[in-house]
Amino acid sequence: MTKVNRPIVAVIGASSAPDDVCMMAADIGAEIARHRWHLICGGGDGVMEAACRGFIEAREEPGIVTLGVLPTEDNSFANPFVEVPIPTGMGWARNAVITRTADGVVAIGGCSGTLSEIAFAWQMGKPIAALVKSGGWSQKLAGQKVDGRRQDKIFAAQTPVEAAAFLAGALSDNK
Amino acid sequence: MTKVNRPIVAVIGASSAPDDVCMMAADIGAEIARHRWHLICGGGDGVMEAACRGFIEAREEPGIVTLGVLPTEDNSFANPFVEVPIPTGMGWARNAVITRTADGVVAIGGCSGTLSEIAFAWQMGKPIAALVKSGGWSQKLAGQKVDGRRQDKIFAAQTPVEAAAFLAGALSDNK
Amino acid sequence: MTKVNRPIVAVIGASSAPDDVCMMAADIGAEIARHRWHLICGGGDGVMEAACRGFIEAREEPGIVTLGVLPTEDNSFANPFVEVPIPTGMGWARNAVITRTADGVVAIGGCSGTLSEIAFAWQMGKPIAALVKSGGWSQKLAGQKVDGRRQDKIFAAQTPVEAAAFLAGALSDNK
Amino acid sequence: MTKVNRPIVAVIGASSAPDDVCMMAADIGAEIARHRWHLICGGGDGVMEAACRGFIEAREEPGIVTLGVLPTEDNSFANPFVEVPIPTGMGWARNAVITRTADGVVAIGGCSGTLSEIAFAWQMGKPIAALVKSGGWSQKLAGQKVDGRRQDKIFAAQTPVEAAAFLAGALSDNK
Repeated sequence: MTKVNRPIVAVIGASSAPDDVCMMAADIGAEIARHRWHLICGGGDGVMEAACRGFIEAREEPGIVTLGVLPTEDNSFANPFVEVPIPTGMGWARNAVITRTADGVVAIGGCSGTLSEIAFAWQMGKPIAALVKSGGWSQKLAGQKVDGRRQDKIFAAQTPVEAAAFLAGALSDNK
Repeated sequence: MTKVNRPIVAVIGASSAPDDVCMMAADIGAEIARHRWHLICGGGDGVMEAACRGFIEAREEPGIVTLGVLPTEDNSFANPFVEVPIPTGMGWARNAVITRTADGVVAIGGCSGTLSEIAFAWQMGKPIAALVKSGGWSQKLAGQKVDGRRQDKIFAAQTPVEAAAFLAGALSDNK
Repeated sequence: MTKVNRPIVAVIGASSAPDDVCMMAADIGAEIARHRWHLICGGGDGVMEAACRGFIEAREEPGIVTLGVLPTEDNSFANPFVEVPIPTGMGWARNAVITRTADGVVAIGGCSGTLSEIAFAWQMGKPIAALVKSGGWSQKLAGQKVDGRRQDKIFAAQTPVEAAAFLAGALSDNK
Repeated sequence: MTKVNRPIVAVIGASSAPDDVCMMAADIGAEIARHRWHLICGGGDGVMEAACRGFIEAREEPGIVTLGVLPTEDNSFANPFVEVPIPTGMGWARNAVITRTADGVVAIGGCSGTLSEIAFAWQMGKPIAALVKSGGWSQKLAGQKVDGRRQDKIFAAQTPVEAAAFLAGALSDNK
């Protein structure tokens, strides 16, 4: 009998993103797999798909999975690399479930949907790393505070490796 | 038999706010009542309470109400000026219900919770007015685009009257 | 300045129902209006529409409204007698919001959706009246306990007037 | 690169249950593991804990996990055998997420919470097996229809093995 309790890390970003941003997302996915964390995301295309694909390609241990918290009532929204689709049927309110479930968050690029997730993650006290060169709201908010309720800032990660290292430290502190 | 179908306007802002910001919120509430719109908000203190109070003080016609979409499972979260408390028991995911229900949104000041609501309102295509002198995320985003999906911008309102006039125009266009 | 704080009573039942069941629903709606309660429902057709219509036809005081907590992201699901549509975009999970918001519940006929609402209302400790001659789950469960957690039973109402009288007593006890 | 796509089966039942009912739940959990399905549940005690424990004890392949869709905002509600806690912060509305995510459902005993899940699973068209000797709503509804919208009935399973065999057939038909 072996119970596999792994941290869960969210990757948040847009469903449509340029190639270089998707490459960062794939690298983040791979880092998450190497750290033996589960990957949670919104389950869609773009950054979410790239992260799930990178995770699965890099995974060496089978006890970790990709989770897609879908806005829809069925699995048609899920990208091909989501292993555990969770069709909430709750639309964008599902963003709150993603950040609530995550032990840590990596933000990559992003439009208004990603912005709502960054806001929720901050409000819920989750450690957040944002990739500085990924554009969108992640770039704007990297190194910033969302408001005055927390002492820390959104971590400005230069690379996916740096983002994962930051979260590894934060998750270790929370134990 | 008279059915009373009124637009529903959301006021979003922090549960703790300085006096001058709460005065703006009360003025917005009064404007909403004068336009014979329902007022919807998160039902809490600060900006939300001031807006509900201003609405009730200015209301001349009884067919409109203040609605508080609460994060909690009971009504204890509701400020004393909420007439129709809706205890969702869904935490911050209730922010998506507020913006989904609103025909238009007024943003005043605000921290991460308000930011998530602005992001949702933008994503859902709702007209948004932000008070420029109210601080917080409303001030930062007044006159800005949240992302490229919409042609318009968050309207930068100098005064509550201007915010209400903007929404009156937007609601009229949508008919 | 007059704040209008009224109890909120839910009418739950199927979106498709025979004429005699819809007549009961209309009568319940009228009773709710006479007691000066707000009416909340799922906002759809059938029992929900009849209840809203009956409410509006009987209403003499304008400070009370019909609220429709919709499963959809827009208002197209709402029947023509919903005055305050609340498009949750949360599908059937919205059933939990209806029962959470209600101070009391009247069940009329009903299929699986109504059954989930009766179950939630019971679990949430809300007083429930079921119309015995309305068929469906309301008839099956009238006079029954859903489980052992409560001392009371679902009230078996012979008529809409009896259902409303029961709720008036229950709401009075809770004050 | 290996993607592990497994069906997800829900176990629904009360958070407090007699020993013999919990033994059935543990057997169901074991059956789910043997079929290489993920197990999803509400993440709580009683039937949910027993099912998760049985699953983990019987699991031989590491690519499948126990998921707990929690009503709470943190993981304190989760039983010790939940590997992937999903704290929705949405209270009982999370019941709709469990049944939406499930490809099939096993009902064991159960009070009003379980009843709401059976109702949702029926409404969402999911195959349902109920253990006839487990008491509660599962026993009452085994072999019954919840309403007329479906041609089939809730499958009356005499044993956990029979319940799993039924779902294996139903999942196979849906492919």
